[in-house]
Amino acid sequence: MTATRIPDTTQAELDTVLQRAADAAEAFGAQPPAARARQLVAAADALDAASSELVPLAMAESNLSEGRLTGELKRTTFQLRVFAEVLDDGSYLQATLDRADAAFPLGAKPDLRRILQPIGPVLVFAASNFPFAFSVAGGDTASALAAGCPVVLKGHPGHPRLSVRTGEIIVQSLAESGAPHGAFQVVLGFEVGTAALQDPRIKAAAFTGSVPAGRALFDIANSRPTPIPFFGELGSLNPVFVTPSAVHARGEEIAKGYVTSYSGNAGQLCTKPGLLFLPADHGLDELLAAESKAVAAHKLLNERLHEGYRGRRAAVTEVAGVRVLAEGSVDDGAVPTLLATDVDTLLANRQELLEEVFGPLSIVVTYSSGDEARRAAEAFEGNLTATLHAESDDTEFAATLVSRLRERAGRVLFNGWPTGVAVSPAMQHGGPYPAATDARFTSVGTASIDRFLRPVTYQNVPQDLLPEALRDENPWGIPQTIHEPK
Amino acid sequence: MTATRIPDTTQAELDTVLQRAADAAEAFGAQPPAARARQLVAAADALDAASSELVPLAMAESNLSEGRLTGELKRTTFQLRVFAEVLDDGSYLQATLDRADAAFPLGAKPDLRRILQPIGPVLVFAASNFPFAFSVAGGDTASALAAGCPVVLKGHPGHPRLSVRTGEIIVQSLAESGAPHGAFQVVLGFEVGTAALQDPRIKAAAFTGSVPAGRALFDIANSRPTPIPFFGELGSLNPVFVTPSAVHARGEEIAKGYVTSYSGNAGQLCTKPGLLFLPADHGLDELLAAESKAVAAHKLLNERLHEGYRGRRAAVTEVAGVRVLAEGSVDDGAVPTLLATDVDTLLANRQELLEEVFGPLSIVVTYSSGDEARRAAEAFEGNLTATLHAESDDTEFAATLVSRLRERAGRVLFNGWPTGVAVSPAMQHGGPYPAATDARFTSVGTASIDRFLRPVTYQNVPQDLLPEALRDENPWGIPQTIHEPK
Repeated sequence: MTATRIPDTTQAELDTVLQRAADAAEAFGAQPPAARARQLVAAADALDAASSELVPLAMAESNLSEGRLTGELKRTTFQLRVFAEVLDDGSYLQATLDRADAAFPLGAKPDLRRILQPIGPVLVFAASNFPFAFSVAGGDTASALAAGCPVVLKGHPGHPRLSVRTGEIIVQSLAESGAPHGAFQVVLGFEVGTAALQDPRIKAAAFTGSVPAGRALFDIANSRPTPIPFFGELGSLNPVFVTPSAVHARGEEIAKGYVTSYSGNAGQLCTKPGLLFLPADHGLDELLAAESKAVAAHKLLNERLHEGYRGRRAAVTEVAGVRVLAEGSVDDGAVPTLLATDVDTLLANRQELLEEVFGPLSIVVTYSSGDEARRAAEAFEGNLTATLHAESDDTEFAATLVSRLRERAGRVLFNGWPTGVAVSPAMQHGGPYPAATDARFTSVGTASIDRFLRPVTYQNVPQDLLPEALRDENPWGIPQTIHEPK
Repeated sequence: MTATRIPDTTQAELDTVLQRAADAAEAFGAQPPAARARQLVAAADALDAASSELVPLAMAESNLSEGRLTGELKRTTFQLRVFAEVLDDGSYLQATLDRADAAFPLGAKPDLRRILQPIGPVLVFAASNFPFAFSVAGGDTASALAAGCPVVLKGHPGHPRLSVRTGEIIVQSLAESGAPHGAFQVVLGFEVGTAALQDPRIKAAAFTGSVPAGRALFDIANSRPTPIPFFGELGSLNPVFVTPSAVHARGEEIAKGYVTSYSGNAGQLCTKPGLLFLPADHGLDELLAAESKAVAAHKLLNERLHEGYRGRRAAVTEVAGVRVLAEGSVDDGAVPTLLATDVDTLLANRQELLEEVFGPLSIVVTYSSGDEARRAAEAFEGNLTATLHAESDDTEFAATLVSRLRERAGRVLFNGWPTGVAVSPAMQHGGPYPAATDARFTSVGTASIDRFLRPVTYQNVPQDLLPEALRDENPWGIPQTIHEPK
């Protein structure tokens, strides 16, 4: 189906792209937020209008269904519009004014005004598993553009034609709505991506993908003569703990919800629950196996992921002490594989079992006591999510688990499933390494704009030389936090 | 004078220290902010009460004057009290509540609540040039403790006795005011510092010092199996640009202010102006030379800095095209050295001239046109500060310079001098590399607390399992940003 082979960007083309991004940075960042808001909405409108062209392109390149892709495109354009609202609100700039204070305890204090400004051109690496929402016009791009940073988008090799076409639509809609030439550009090719990451004109990078690939790029970003922030959203096991009371009260519902969550999208979600902790006498083995076997085969996104999944599945299945609940398969498509083990085996085989399997495989782990469950919870590295299913009489057990899980996760869920990620102000999609390379930031939700901003303080600067957002007359009408002398 | 030699911390002692810090983390972080606020005030009170003991200790170890050290201790305790106010206010937690929304455009949205929580035990490296304000109880310690992170303080070898004694006072005051054992500890020794930085129990580190030392530590922090945030405040040239109109209007005042600023504290300030850009016909050579020669000799902080300064001074002075305005000296104490050159020489000798000289040396650079001044402004890497002296008729020239300087600095000053740094909400002390290893954060001012916090989102978590700051009843009475469904 992918008849037209799209050539990689050449080094010479990349140089032009990077120079254009650098040249666009000042004008793009200096626009009033409302202007960039209009540009984001224009891009969203243009993508929505091209849905009947883009969704088939994505289907041809990704093995994903029309329904899934239509929903993903909707999420993508929603995301762009959410950032337009963030810009119209303006509080993301964190404008802070400290008035001069002659009587300051440590000596006269000048007039100080602090604002967040765009960090500069951002390199975004598209992801395999979300051709729309975490790719060309996805969350990283939306938040970087919203911040006022030109974006150089490195398309994923899994969907090159979609990348190019989506890019063309964004470029055109941005140009027509007044963004400077160079505010957004797409490049293709592995070597081009690493060369761009090393280029001094790139000031930050964002990535969603595997731990090895993300760590390699993180290391490049940090070993530059001038290191830059690298925002990698990498691997996650997303453990789920279920208390005995919860099994008793709604074991069947939990079993069904779990299978739906781990097998959805062929298990190719960063928030797939990889481990389900149940009390030893849970009695759900048969139901879990039956539900898993009832899931239809689903092709993985591409051949590379298929082979990667096949290898990891074999390695995990072969660990002594791991037994098969539902064998599944990984032939033409993948049928979910469900395994079972206990906490002792898990802790004795951390290297094999506490590493993400990207595909429809999950492990049920039985614990024999609350202490054992807590020890298991302490074994995890950083995760995007951690989930607890409990009842109201579980307070003490639940509290000790929550306190351990929140140290190791960016999002703690109660009586739910982690696979859905809402685009909202309170969302945290990140967590301690390796869930993310920087736990202080999120890659989903409106707070993700913070990744691409840095503060500058202006001291005693006259009104006409101040950025608009810091002027007394506040021409942009944004929230200003004003500290008067005490 | 330093008769008692203080032995380095042993590896076995370090292990105990790190375990204590790890064990203290949960209890210390879970305290209500008001409790930690009382602990910070108790520490400030104890340090103020010990002033007559601490200031002589610092004088014996640092070559700094009683007046300077008394003021620095006052700043240090003020800083601790400012963070107590931040805790009492509570908005630093950024508590954000998104109510559940069944009608959310992308499908029913759960109840999401986001809060910043302490990142875990922090390793703080004390600085040579501020025995109080950037050392044991300094800004990094104050902000990390305020965030709820146990602190392991690596004392600077320049003032070991002061480090130990200040540490004892903090430990005692924290214990008496209810902080858990292990919330604050002091260690000594170069190898112990790097070992601690590599230890998985340390979750972030802060450092103030030279570019080579800071970069070496940054590289260690990033190459760990689990990388951690490293906040280095490194080198800065702090360029100052003066327009022809400003020279005409107040050249004498500018010359005097500049000499005071670059020579103060023997030039051992991260915000010392290293380069003063003047129009070619400025006519201030004699005045600048006379003012520099009138500055008394001042001993550098320690022998190592003295030798480092001697070497850099010789290297810079020997660059062809650099002439001496005031030769100064670097014998027993240092008398300021003032050099002069032009923009062409500066740009042709970037490696030698655009690198910090830590000591009382500065360079006057003449520019022959506005374009040349702008080209010079574009030559800088990241700086903590950049300053412009201009008059009201300079608008266009000033605006183009400000736009270039703000891209390369954390703080832009107008008609002032950068050496004073106010502890206030709008302060930014940081900037693009190498001014800081992470331009998105500040090491001075109340926003510095953000370095040691990371967000966690709670999804549909019942009230009694939520952190207090996220509960509907808001028992801590902190600001909560609540988003209701539209």
